[in-house]
Amino acid sequence: MAFEQDRRFLVHDVLDYSGHYASLDFPDAPGRELIDAILDEVGRFALKELKPLNRIGDEHGCTLADGVVTTPPGFKEAYQKFVEGGWASLTGTVEYGGQGLPDSMSLFLEELLCCANLAWAMYPGLSRGVLEALESHGSADQKRDFLTKLISGEWTGTMCLTESHAGSDVGLARTRAEADADGTYRITGSKIFISAGEHDLAENIVHLVLARVDGAPDGTKGISMFVVPKFNLDGTRNQVVCGAIEEKMGIHGNATCVLHFEAAKGYLVGEENDGMRYMFTMMNAARIVVGLQGICLAQAAYERAAEYATQRLQMRSLSGPKAPDQPADPIIVHPDVRRMLLTQKALIEGGRALVYFAGQLIDLVELGKDEEIRDEASELLDFLTPIVKGFLTEVSFESINHGVQVFGGHGFIRETGVEQFLRDARITLLYEGTTGIQALDLLGRKVLMNQGKGLIRMITRMDEIAAACQSALPDIADALTQLGKQWGEVSFAIGVAAQDDPEEIGAASVDYLFYSGYAVLAYLWARMALTASERADDAYGRGKIATARFYFQRLLPRTLAHKAAIEAGGASLMQISDEALTSGLSTPVR
Amino acid sequence: MAFEQDRRFLVHDVLDYSGHYASLDFPDAPGRELIDAILDEVGRFALKELKPLNRIGDEHGCTLADGVVTTPPGFKEAYQKFVEGGWASLTGTVEYGGQGLPDSMSLFLEELLCCANLAWAMYPGLSRGVLEALESHGSADQKRDFLTKLISGEWTGTMCLTESHAGSDVGLARTRAEADADGTYRITGSKIFISAGEHDLAENIVHLVLARVDGAPDGTKGISMFVVPKFNLDGTRNQVVCGAIEEKMGIHGNATCVLHFEAAKGYLVGEENDGMRYMFTMMNAARIVVGLQGICLAQAAYERAAEYATQRLQMRSLSGPKAPDQPADPIIVHPDVRRMLLTQKALIEGGRALVYFAGQLIDLVELGKDEEIRDEASELLDFLTPIVKGFLTEVSFESINHGVQVFGGHGFIRETGVEQFLRDARITLLYEGTTGIQALDLLGRKVLMNQGKGLIRMITRMDEIAAACQSALPDIADALTQLGKQWGEVSFAIGVAAQDDPEEIGAASVDYLFYSGYAVLAYLWARMALTASERADDAYGRGKIATARFYFQRLLPRTLAHKAAIEAGGASLMQISDEALTSGLSTPVR
Repeated sequence: MAFEQDRRFLVHDVLDYSGHYASLDFPDAPGRELIDAILDEVGRFALKELKPLNRIGDEHGCTLADGVVTTPPGFKEAYQKFVEGGWASLTGTVEYGGQGLPDSMSLFLEELLCCANLAWAMYPGLSRGVLEALESHGSADQKRDFLTKLISGEWTGTMCLTESHAGSDVGLARTRAEADADGTYRITGSKIFISAGEHDLAENIVHLVLARVDGAPDGTKGISMFVVPKFNLDGTRNQVVCGAIEEKMGIHGNATCVLHFEAAKGYLVGEENDGMRYMFTMMNAARIVVGLQGICLAQAAYERAAEYATQRLQMRSLSGPKAPDQPADPIIVHPDVRRMLLTQKALIEGGRALVYFAGQLIDLVELGKDEEIRDEASELLDFLTPIVKGFLTEVSFESINHGVQVFGGHGFIRETGVEQFLRDARITLLYEGTTGIQALDLLGRKVLMNQGKGLIRMITRMDEIAAACQSALPDIADALTQLGKQWGEVSFAIGVAAQDDPEEIGAASVDYLFYSGYAVLAYLWARMALTASERADDAYGRGKIATARFYFQRLLPRTLAHKAAIEAGGASLMQISDEALTSGLSTPVR
Repeated sequence: MAFEQDRRFLVHDVLDYSGHYASLDFPDAPGRELIDAILDEVGRFALKELKPLNRIGDEHGCTLADGVVTTPPGFKEAYQKFVEGGWASLTGTVEYGGQGLPDSMSLFLEELLCCANLAWAMYPGLSRGVLEALESHGSADQKRDFLTKLISGEWTGTMCLTESHAGSDVGLARTRAEADADGTYRITGSKIFISAGEHDLAENIVHLVLARVDGAPDGTKGISMFVVPKFNLDGTRNQVVCGAIEEKMGIHGNATCVLHFEAAKGYLVGEENDGMRYMFTMMNAARIVVGLQGICLAQAAYERAAEYATQRLQMRSLSGPKAPDQPADPIIVHPDVRRMLLTQKALIEGGRALVYFAGQLIDLVELGKDEEIRDEASELLDFLTPIVKGFLTEVSFESINHGVQVFGGHGFIRETGVEQFLRDARITLLYEGTTGIQALDLLGRKVLMNQGKGLIRMITRMDEIAAACQSALPDIADALTQLGKQWGEVSFAIGVAAQDDPEEIGAASVDYLFYSGYAVLAYLWARMALTASERADDAYGRGKIATARFYFQRLLPRTLAHKAAIEAGGASLMQISDEALTSGLSTPVR
């Protein structure tokens, strides 16, 4: 994979993953060689088997006939090889046949798959949510019945949350669950937007379904979680029917299904009415993965754009010909093309660093040696999760858009392949909670309802890195120190305003998410530049430091605009009448 | 059309178009009633005939078989009605059967067509470039032979500039022209990305082709322009062959063709080797239209999003239920949904005002009563053209992206219809010169090579409006005054830096384009707010003023980020090695 050098730099030099693994309460810590060996092998698999199917998946899409979904040519064969290679079970519990590696390893795996073929990677990817939920909250019987096959990859999973009238507002879900005498439930209702909801890759599909037991309270307090397999344990077909596959803007290779549950047999996970809590177990893990998906698509687009920029000859450099023996210079000589490439590089490599940093926190929450370590990791991870999901998907979309732009008119042509990444990426800003939902989670729950615990931890980390940068990179050190101080002040001011008017939270939220995202990436760019400055003085390290400076000089100032927007406050949004806001196009319900 | 009220406000109240028409050196100035009557009628045509075909065009696309292109169902019938209605000839010269209205009227017409169906509107839209070029530079014979049919709409036109290796760098074009004994030329070569290059809507297609006469100088100095009809004047088929239609990200309803000219008969326009000058005649007009296309698609997406926001029920307002008798509140109550809608409204209405302002300048350049008026208009229009094209398409794309986001997951589904606008809009950032090309044109040619003439005119206009706003809208007046001063300083500083290093121009250019775009929109929002403040105090006017304040408080501060990026200078882009910039993905040609 083309980002192998960057991965090694982050995993070994910046984040010292083998030291991290050795620090965990974990018997067989994988060392540097094993990490590289596993990931290099997965990378080869992804390049050979999945990448060639990426455009095929986009062109063919999935088809539904007589309730049976056919995936694009080659998808099924590649999945069989994936399962046979044992890749599905990398981080699964040893007790159920998994290889038991720390969870962060599954992020590295996911990255390699998604960079090659997002639509394909979502089929095994969706299983992780089911695994997380059952491992944390399932009964012994449920673990026995479902985990082994899910871990091996013989079966895949789904998350069935959304209904046509209940998207962000899961509490409006109407799907019903009626208790049967044998302790199971009959599930009845329709779910939409179910990724990998029906397909031909695996023998069975295990649906995790949110439903309402008869007599349950209204809203989120009456939501329960059920396991509903496509085929029952006795091999008979359960009453789960794929009613349609959605025609979408992108990820055509993944079947997005309407699923009808027609008194389907379901098994209650944990306690009745406690489903929302379990949902967040799987949702938080999924949100990190979605942030990573954005970065992967951005990486794929950047690779194409970087190659094109060195090959495409158009116009002469303003400072004189750079390739005088050619009819024109390669477009990489033009400052604005460099700006677009550097923006991509800075956002992608910064974003990747954030995901890998979050990967360590995921490990530490579960396997940290003592409570203080686990608590700190938990607070930081809670705080960073909406930033990984909300911010990284937004800047990845921007990054891909630059990638398309580097191609000029050719970027709009399907054959070039880069526009697919833009279409595929658009979903990452929406599913598993829109950017707006992430922003409310960050500012409302993770900062204001939590006395800023995670934020304070993060600013402390920033100050530590700023101090460490002081001698080698004083410009970056000073900028980071100032940023941390300002971030705290901005957050505090919103908290004060929100005490008088809760609408201030929503009015600031998305700008606060962006502000925070740029701040977190500044921290990671400072860490990367610091590591690079401590290495041997080579071209790679100099490139890292130059990119860090580009980030601080040309991207971080976007925080100024977001700060101003936050400071404009709720009045700037709430005072205008609904009629004027919609230019009189429609009559509001209220 | 849904923006009728906004159009009337701009045309009559803000820009006093009937007064403007009366001021021109023009016999039959259309008054308020005639303007409205014409545009209302076109709007009805567009809503009835074109809008229903928009998604059909996207789904069906165009097909090529045996050199014949078939457009989507209904496109041809709608085009016939368009021609029969006389709409094609609105602004055509009276001498050749046109109705002779001022050119700005064609912008209003274009807006109505593009809001309903961009892919369709491009078929008659492309004719305008040919008309402009022939009216300005064609011979008497050429005008006689081609103008009447083009003006009536019986024939359509194309612009054949791009070759596979010659995009932004038109000077690399290789298409050859050999003089024949009869004074015509034989044109040989292949052109790509030819919008409406072949289709079944009209009897004949008139191609304007850039080619190189044998022995012509290299580069742009050896480019000549030719008229090459699909059918010769004697009715025989000319040797222009459609070799392929491109599969694209969007505008599927418009045929983007590869055209092969195989010793096709062509007529030289004007003088040999003077083709680039004529190309800019049509290109400048086309660039204004492309900026408008962006706004039109943004308007279409905003209409959908605004309606959805008032109908979709999800979650309760943080300040308490607003629709207590419903299961949830309409999402328009949520501050972040309002932020997305207001951003769309502010960018669209500001952008529309800019296009209408440019429309007056277009009229004044040609028909202004005295030289001073024509000169001022010409300098302002030259300066604003790259902003209209480059900035408005970029912010329109952002605006549509917000429109998709308002829909949540439903925005990603094709059936909802809003994602089509995002796909369609992507081309507007690329064709007729990418954003980067516009930015170089603005900063290099229109500001630095021109001693900032247009910029100074613009800042003068800003100061006038700031003074007029002082009593009613002092906050806006002060912000506008400061902005004008800062804009001048930022521009001057780039000029100083560029004297030492020409790369500073490219390094600043796109950020300067954005900075300037936000500044120009601030001017227009101040004008709109001022007009609204002078009207009767009604809901419409209050909405305008609230939107202006939103613009100044929450969008204009983006200039801070662009200013910082400009000030980072060329070193932030040029110092990094090509290898590091591309993460070693490819070996540069240089």
